[in-house]
Amino acid sequence: MRVTFLPDDVTVDVERGVSLMQAAELAEVQLHAPCGGKGTCGRCKVIISGSVDAERDSHISDAEWAAGYRLACRSGVAGDVTVMVPDPPELSRPRVLVRTPGEVSNMTPIVQRSSIEVPVASMDDPTALLERVLGSAGEGIGASVPLDLIRSLPEVVSQCNGSVDVLLGAKGLVTVLPRGSVYGMAVDLGTTTVVVNLIDLDTGGTVAGAAGYNDQILMGEDVLSRIERAEEGDLERLRQLALGSINRLTVEAIAAIDGSTDQVTTAVVAGNTAMAHMMLGVDPSSIRYHPYSPAFNASPMLSAGEIGLKILPAAPVMLVPGTAAWVGGDITAGVVSSGMHRRSELSLLIDVGTNGEVVLGNRDWLMCCSSSAGPAFDGGEVACGMRAMDGAIDRVGSDLGFHVLGDAPPRGICGSGLIDLIAAMLEQGIVDRKGRLQDHISVTERDGIKEMTLCPGIAVNEDDIANLIRSKAAVFAAIRCLLRAAGLTIGAVERLHLAGGFGHYVDPDNAVAIGLLPDIPRDRFSYLGNSSLAGARDVLLSTPRRLEAREVAASMTYVDLSTSPEFFDEFTSALFLPHTDLSLFPRPQ
Amino acid sequence: MRVTFLPDDVTVDVERGVSLMQAAELAEVQLHAPCGGKGTCGRCKVIISGSVDAERDSHISDAEWAAGYRLACRSGVAGDVTVMVPDPPELSRPRVLVRTPGEVSNMTPIVQRSSIEVPVASMDDPTALLERVLGSAGEGIGASVPLDLIRSLPEVVSQCNGSVDVLLGAKGLVTVLPRGSVYGMAVDLGTTTVVVNLIDLDTGGTVAGAAGYNDQILMGEDVLSRIERAEEGDLERLRQLALGSINRLTVEAIAAIDGSTDQVTTAVVAGNTAMAHMMLGVDPSSIRYHPYSPAFNASPMLSAGEIGLKILPAAPVMLVPGTAAWVGGDITAGVVSSGMHRRSELSLLIDVGTNGEVVLGNRDWLMCCSSSAGPAFDGGEVACGMRAMDGAIDRVGSDLGFHVLGDAPPRGICGSGLIDLIAAMLEQGIVDRKGRLQDHISVTERDGIKEMTLCPGIAVNEDDIANLIRSKAAVFAAIRCLLRAAGLTIGAVERLHLAGGFGHYVDPDNAVAIGLLPDIPRDRFSYLGNSSLAGARDVLLSTPRRLEAREVAASMTYVDLSTSPEFFDEFTSALFLPHTDLSLFPRPQ
Repeated sequence: MRVTFLPDDVTVDVERGVSLMQAAELAEVQLHAPCGGKGTCGRCKVIISGSVDAERDSHISDAEWAAGYRLACRSGVAGDVTVMVPDPPELSRPRVLVRTPGEVSNMTPIVQRSSIEVPVASMDDPTALLERVLGSAGEGIGASVPLDLIRSLPEVVSQCNGSVDVLLGAKGLVTVLPRGSVYGMAVDLGTTTVVVNLIDLDTGGTVAGAAGYNDQILMGEDVLSRIERAEEGDLERLRQLALGSINRLTVEAIAAIDGSTDQVTTAVVAGNTAMAHMMLGVDPSSIRYHPYSPAFNASPMLSAGEIGLKILPAAPVMLVPGTAAWVGGDITAGVVSSGMHRRSELSLLIDVGTNGEVVLGNRDWLMCCSSSAGPAFDGGEVACGMRAMDGAIDRVGSDLGFHVLGDAPPRGICGSGLIDLIAAMLEQGIVDRKGRLQDHISVTERDGIKEMTLCPGIAVNEDDIANLIRSKAAVFAAIRCLLRAAGLTIGAVERLHLAGGFGHYVDPDNAVAIGLLPDIPRDRFSYLGNSSLAGARDVLLSTPRRLEAREVAASMTYVDLSTSPEFFDEFTSALFLPHTDLSLFPRPQ
Repeated sequence: MRVTFLPDDVTVDVERGVSLMQAAELAEVQLHAPCGGKGTCGRCKVIISGSVDAERDSHISDAEWAAGYRLACRSGVAGDVTVMVPDPPELSRPRVLVRTPGEVSNMTPIVQRSSIEVPVASMDDPTALLERVLGSAGEGIGASVPLDLIRSLPEVVSQCNGSVDVLLGAKGLVTVLPRGSVYGMAVDLGTTTVVVNLIDLDTGGTVAGAAGYNDQILMGEDVLSRIERAEEGDLERLRQLALGSINRLTVEAIAAIDGSTDQVTTAVVAGNTAMAHMMLGVDPSSIRYHPYSPAFNASPMLSAGEIGLKILPAAPVMLVPGTAAWVGGDITAGVVSSGMHRRSELSLLIDVGTNGEVVLGNRDWLMCCSSSAGPAFDGGEVACGMRAMDGAIDRVGSDLGFHVLGDAPPRGICGSGLIDLIAAMLEQGIVDRKGRLQDHISVTERDGIKEMTLCPGIAVNEDDIANLIRSKAAVFAAIRCLLRAAGLTIGAVERLHLAGGFGHYVDPDNAVAIGLLPDIPRDRFSYLGNSSLAGARDVLLSTPRRLEAREVAASMTYVDLSTSPEFFDEFTSALFLPHTDLSLFPRPQ
């Protein structure tokens, strides 16, 4: 029977009854198993699709069980099965990033702490406890108060002898706690990766973070295939997988600072429109059908409890609003984080992933679009492609020397390495401008297709190169269409913001050399890093940023490329290295 | 083994294994059993305290099971057991009370309906669905929207081709429904009785109602004993019993109009402070200890879902605010319903029950107090006392002729009958002003105590009369203390409002004759009926009434009688029939 482990996509054949833990060992897939497979630690949790004989276990909740979570050491193979390993140790280890306190000035977080002394009741003034607390906090009788708080109030106030912290949101009381630190949570809910940061609400400093895969990968690598799964009836499972991914990382981050769930009193989540729908359990199908009108772009302020996030149930949770079905809250967060909407200079923001989103504008206007780049930059559609993890070649020099991530032999090439490789091959004449491989010592033919071998076992063929060219052409054509819609040329762009992990790792010269990014002076390049996460944090900590996020999302003009005849022309023109029109790329030539 | 059935307090001895259904037959206690005891209809639900062998049944939820609900036909006696029969048919039959539409003018209910047409999305305007709905309803992006609504919105709007009703509350959307009637629910959560009315939010008319016992009776007849049970760890069970009582009646009322749960989109509950605490699951213990400061007097607007009411989960639910531990939302509702706070005339509002609450004042000022009258008027502490149900003597003439409720032989005397009886005995000289029975053909002695027999098997003795005198003295002393605190005399009272079922059934001349009510001209008497329910309805339908309820509750001056030396003097002076000071009762003498 065949067992496939994701996200590594490693397959192993075993006999019926072999445990998934044993199968993982055979497949050299690393699982957490501090207890050695005795079923006591609950750390070898995987998500299965297929047939296993599994024992119910107290480490797995009802909702997780329904979503396919199982303990690998307690699950026997009973048929072909696909196993998602949700927690590769190298990704999920919490990174504690203590920053200097007081770094953020003029903080106005979604919930604000106020330390109060609750007056003691007397026969002369037997005012009810809740009214005394509201009065001390400067709130009126119309303030909202969660029922759980009314219930816990007598005990909390009594235990603290009236010296308590009150957390106030826009509508009223969020919680009342003993004096101590309180945190907000910023979440980047990516299609592939989820990152959670805990932020001290007094200092604005990030005190802990954790990152891991979005467990939804089990239901499809890209957004479109997951929307299809939702339409087939798997929406609830997709919701559980997204929440499970966030909650697992939340628990790790809280544990890293010895905190408690109830100290996390607000959260902001940034994700694309489909992720936002699935996390809330809202049907995302309209996202993939004409006229691409989602169920919501801006959600109201919700509570962690109604969503299912494992923080204080009454914590207000904001999803960063999006602009359209294919330009979501992650892009709004990127804009807010870049500050391009506050400056007069013309900026271009590019987020390259399976979808390439582009935003153009300044403080007076903003336009945006999205084009389907395909998964080539994420390691898909390329035979030797892989994600940026241990064993991935992430850098290739012009001499075809290369660097491998982690202390591992090379297993494949990730996006930044592929771009370097194509640029080097173009420079050396190994590939021509149409993407055809030339005669060269490293170029051989297999099954009638020419391939170039970088090192033993790792090669790119002409199909791979064609896929890469289509991906970079889609992004560049989107940039060109947006500029044309604004009546501007590439040269007018004063600042180019590269968003996302890809933007962080890519070599800008090589990205320009292959025609992925426009050829403007390199000192105009700005690297935002994880701007979805940074924007979520900004929105969490600042009322002006929250208002800006809503304003940006609501006011950006969305240019739909799927109905644009110009886009096809631009795309076709970009199917060369770097482009049909070489005058667009004057510098590196 | 001994089985005691409440609220009738009938006891029967049976052998182990006999079903509660059979025991009820032996005890002549009526149970619903449309299926004849086969366990299929689920209507013979009772609440047990003691030992039974019961089968789990799909008619009983987890929460109900934990609270002690069982099917009588599927429960065998396994020891001494007390059985609460929650639903005497004569009390709970829904009364459909259709009123004329349009009766209420200037309605401003807690949620208001707005019929909208949701614009269709197009490529030119692919605005997200939620934003289109909010825009059509005139709401901004900051409006609150329940997550359940975001989830259901695509299907509801699609099914109705965009022609939907939007229900708007103070903070945003409450629900979106197909066109049709929508209702609000007014609830009187009494210590003994619960009444639920459904009100059409377009006309203001009451379309259905249901009344039944508060199942908490199983945990104690009066408020104090229930607070003690809460302190002993039974708060959650008390909460479930209160909610179960309301929910059972809600289901009946909705069924009476062939409605659905989701059409009931808001609710207002009026109850005393202890009932409000227990319904919300908030520790009520501070209510019975010095300085009598409750956990809350005014609760925030909550949702039906967080409380556990079986109406639309997102429905805003308001508890009518109270003033103090012993003057709760039922009294505020009574004041609002009476209108005394809007008029210049000096009014006195009296609510006689196990506690006697009294409010004095006019549009400029309000004062209130509470005194413990004891259960005599509710049928307790009197050997032949019973509640006003079938078989109760509710009227006694001056010739000692009497009237019995329902088509039944007399089983006891309810509060109004007891007052009539004492007044008649006083008039005929059978009892003297100190409550001592005189020589009379009906007066005999049993176990050394004199008793007066009204009819075979029904008699009152001197202990019963002493209890009744103490009860009426407590109420009258409260009235006197409040007037003294205001520097006024009884003669200054221009309107006397009698609240509650007791006020509705009592004969005013007889109540004055025994010294329960003050002797003022009868044309100043006003009978409010169930003013707790009427006030809840007023608050539900009118923004001004909601504001008035808050204002009344917050501004009433509470006079604490437990620390008042005057109260003891007044109480002692009132331990005569009608009073020590006969000049206070000039008219009927």
